[in-house]
Amino acid sequence: MTTKATAPDDSFHVFDTTLRDGAQREGINLTVADKLTIARHLDAFGVGFIEGGWPGANPRDTEFFARARQEIEFEHARLVAFGATRRAGGKAAEDPQVQALLESGAPVITLVAKSHDRHVELALRTTLEENLEMVRDTVSHLRDQGRRVFVDCEHFFDGYRANPEYAKSVVRTASEAGAEVVILCDTNGGMLPAQVQAVVSTVLADTGARLGIHAQDDTGCAVANTLAAVDAGATHVQCTANGYGERVGNANLFPVVAALELKYGKTVLPEGALAEMTRISHAIAEVVNLTPSTHQPYVGVSAFAHKAGLHASAIKVDPDLYQHIDPELVGNTMRMLVSDMAGRASIELKGKELGIDLGDDRALVGRVVERVKERELKGYTYEAADASFELLLRAEVDGRPRRYFRVESWRAIVEDRPDGTHANEATVKLWAKGERIVATAEGNGPVNALDRALRVGLERIYPQLAKLELIDYKVRILEGRTGTESTTRVLVTTGDGSGDWATVGVAENVIAASWQALEDAYTYGLLRAGVEPTD
Amino acid sequence: MTTKATAPDDSFHVFDTTLRDGAQREGINLTVADKLTIARHLDAFGVGFIEGGWPGANPRDTEFFARARQEIEFEHARLVAFGATRRAGGKAAEDPQVQALLESGAPVITLVAKSHDRHVELALRTTLEENLEMVRDTVSHLRDQGRRVFVDCEHFFDGYRANPEYAKSVVRTASEAGAEVVILCDTNGGMLPAQVQAVVSTVLADTGARLGIHAQDDTGCAVANTLAAVDAGATHVQCTANGYGERVGNANLFPVVAALELKYGKTVLPEGALAEMTRISHAIAEVVNLTPSTHQPYVGVSAFAHKAGLHASAIKVDPDLYQHIDPELVGNTMRMLVSDMAGRASIELKGKELGIDLGDDRALVGRVVERVKERELKGYTYEAADASFELLLRAEVDGRPRRYFRVESWRAIVEDRPDGTHANEATVKLWAKGERIVATAEGNGPVNALDRALRVGLERIYPQLAKLELIDYKVRILEGRTGTESTTRVLVTTGDGSGDWATVGVAENVIAASWQALEDAYTYGLLRAGVEPTD
Repeated sequence: MTTKATAPDDSFHVFDTTLRDGAQREGINLTVADKLTIARHLDAFGVGFIEGGWPGANPRDTEFFARARQEIEFEHARLVAFGATRRAGGKAAEDPQVQALLESGAPVITLVAKSHDRHVELALRTTLEENLEMVRDTVSHLRDQGRRVFVDCEHFFDGYRANPEYAKSVVRTASEAGAEVVILCDTNGGMLPAQVQAVVSTVLADTGARLGIHAQDDTGCAVANTLAAVDAGATHVQCTANGYGERVGNANLFPVVAALELKYGKTVLPEGALAEMTRISHAIAEVVNLTPSTHQPYVGVSAFAHKAGLHASAIKVDPDLYQHIDPELVGNTMRMLVSDMAGRASIELKGKELGIDLGDDRALVGRVVERVKERELKGYTYEAADASFELLLRAEVDGRPRRYFRVESWRAIVEDRPDGTHANEATVKLWAKGERIVATAEGNGPVNALDRALRVGLERIYPQLAKLELIDYKVRILEGRTGTESTTRVLVTTGDGSGDWATVGVAENVIAASWQALEDAYTYGLLRAGVEPTD
Repeated sequence: MTTKATAPDDSFHVFDTTLRDGAQREGINLTVADKLTIARHLDAFGVGFIEGGWPGANPRDTEFFARARQEIEFEHARLVAFGATRRAGGKAAEDPQVQALLESGAPVITLVAKSHDRHVELALRTTLEENLEMVRDTVSHLRDQGRRVFVDCEHFFDGYRANPEYAKSVVRTASEAGAEVVILCDTNGGMLPAQVQAVVSTVLADTGARLGIHAQDDTGCAVANTLAAVDAGATHVQCTANGYGERVGNANLFPVVAALELKYGKTVLPEGALAEMTRISHAIAEVVNLTPSTHQPYVGVSAFAHKAGLHASAIKVDPDLYQHIDPELVGNTMRMLVSDMAGRASIELKGKELGIDLGDDRALVGRVVERVKERELKGYTYEAADASFELLLRAEVDGRPRRYFRVESWRAIVEDRPDGTHANEATVKLWAKGERIVATAEGNGPVNALDRALRVGLERIYPQLAKLELIDYKVRILEGRTGTESTTRVLVTTGDGSGDWATVGVAENVIAASWQALEDAYTYGLLRAGVEPTD
């Protein structure tokens, strides 16, 4: 574990705590291997500090520090161990928990200290003076051992409201004992930006300590609270990737650094790192096994997706008219969503995006707009079904639909047996390359059986279908006031190992709608594979 | 469409635009029935204004206003129609788009106006002076026709940066022409709170107009930006439920009103409304068919869920030590992630609500908790299926399930014919009152066919079933990573003319899940009708 280069400048710290505080999020359970992978991603992104966990308190975290020392050569980041001040009434030099922090080998240690008088008394069960002594003793000891020390003042803002003098005395004590930065934590997340700014300003003026900010998102203001602290003079921000964390979560690293770089014009990441942000956000979501948020600022797939027709026509004139930044700066891309709110302009842009030249053919674009509107009125939605839209667009451009097979008929049977199990069987009758195919398959449901029958029937003729996989399947009933007689819309996502595509089907029943979406999915898969249409 | 009572005070407006701007979110596609349902939820929540859409520009929105006038009696909200200023070079009184706004019958109209000089020239293709004239003429005309008028200054903040004098002249023109509120819109969402606060302060001082704020969440600061504008003197906030909206989304209604009520101590909702916030947030997510965000501030199921051991032990001492507010204030609950999710207390309360006395039978309540947990693990949800929960509860109280018929087996066949039509046929084999019944029916889909066959078979024995009607049917696929092999959950709402009830079914395929929900629906219908169980 060596660090080759520093973050852009030590005068401002981007401190990541995904591996410690982020792991407190409901639904996240990280293995040591996961933590190592995430640490590599964060280092590649260029954060200055990576808080890896609480060695000693948690065996998995102890192992993480041991392996990180051996396995990772950090390019930008310094590894940080998290722990508490020594026990009341003891000595830091003899405290096993403090010793474990040293043994982790981490060059930087973050100590959590109580700064709210009520917490000292109720949770720590010691005196206010002894708490200060614990801070002084532990910081000094770690400094004597050659470590850089940061101190997290837990519940600082609530503590400051209750007893400002005591809260500030903790900051002063930590700073005087050698803590490089004292971090004011909004542990319960109840603060708003104006309050954070006022408190940070006052504490900075009154203590002269170097201050940092740690914000939780319980009011939905963690990013703004972090920036408000920076406005007030904080020079160290603690964040987590994708905002993972206890309860609602922590300040999200990505919008914080994007605001600092793009809105404040501050250099807080190595050159070129910001353009990797979207990729790294998604990669970390994959490691923690959570679907990346589609609507996350800057990095969500919807973050630069435009739907309103009003916007689309303006974007054709100048994309900057409806974008606060160029999405490429953060590694994202602009997308036009096709929907009945959209007009010609979005169809033209979409064609360009798909690499289909619509040229100046206004009549063609007009036909596509009409066709989309007519289909959407029936319940189709193309904004979520790019592949079905592309098939529709190509059919208009070519004058006829892309076809690899013709369906004569199909049938699905679901049978409930007296023992409570179900039998699902489907038969499809198709024509492909002049051949008539009849195939039957079973499945765990009627749609699965149809999917298998279609695949069994076609695979011999189109071996390219073998690698196709159904990834997602969504059903939506469109009009809710007519019971089971409603129209059904099905969205299917299919993958071939190198990419995904989504298709849509609409019909008076779920099986027929699913069949349409499957038919489009297989057709698009063959188109993608470069197979020539036969029909 | 009449309004019986006002929002708490007209001096501050909570303005919801879920139905217009929220509908721009990728993945949302609202039917008129959806919009009416959401409008009812928002009115129940007590927002002052509900922007329903753009009548005239969109046939679905025109229909929404027509139906809302006839079908909804608003308790708190006023309905708002959205539209643009008149065309360049014309007259507002002769502009068909302006006329459509009047014809919507909405008592309040929000006009969108350009306030960024570049947008006027590039997107609107007219002169700066004519744009002002368009604002003046359209506002005056609508005021003359007796409507309240709000003006949305699109791209205000970017426009103010480019040409502050022109941006302010639009505000002044709108205000002088009779607009009650002029809303400064951060259309591209690139602003940060400090910037918003500075601009709103200056514009307020320089124009004297009543100002509102409309913030998009592209920097992750929409809630904070909205509050910053309020700090600077804005008295009208535009938000959407769950933050739905174009790209990343809009300022989220729920954390905004919670901050105003709980942090600012302002009354912006009717009494008791805040405690309904969690329920209403989830209900609206169901209508738009998006999974409610588990980590949404205040209302997410994780918003008051505690995981860290450090926190858990402190919470035992005093829950306020680790909560910024009492979750009951917003209708949410604290959860300890190590302990039971379905608590005893809620089962007891639910029993009381249903009029089933669980007495002091701790063992019985324990059995119900166990059963609910086990079923919820499989994908059942009782929050949204009261009738299925009551059947489960009664089965535990009585020692056996309520039964009016026994199912031997059933079968559904869907057949696609070469002419593109579908045949759907179902057969059910049942026992009721000692009689074996075999019934077959056709329908427009397999579930509809099963529903009809069940009814045909049972109606002779239970004539009470004749008045039962399926009102709503919802399908959700529970796990998205395994294609069509996922588990399926079906929610069915049934009515008998005097009330509605919801039932749930979960199975490996949609037909079997639907069957379970139908079986519960018919059983509950007979229970409600006072029929004695036979089995």
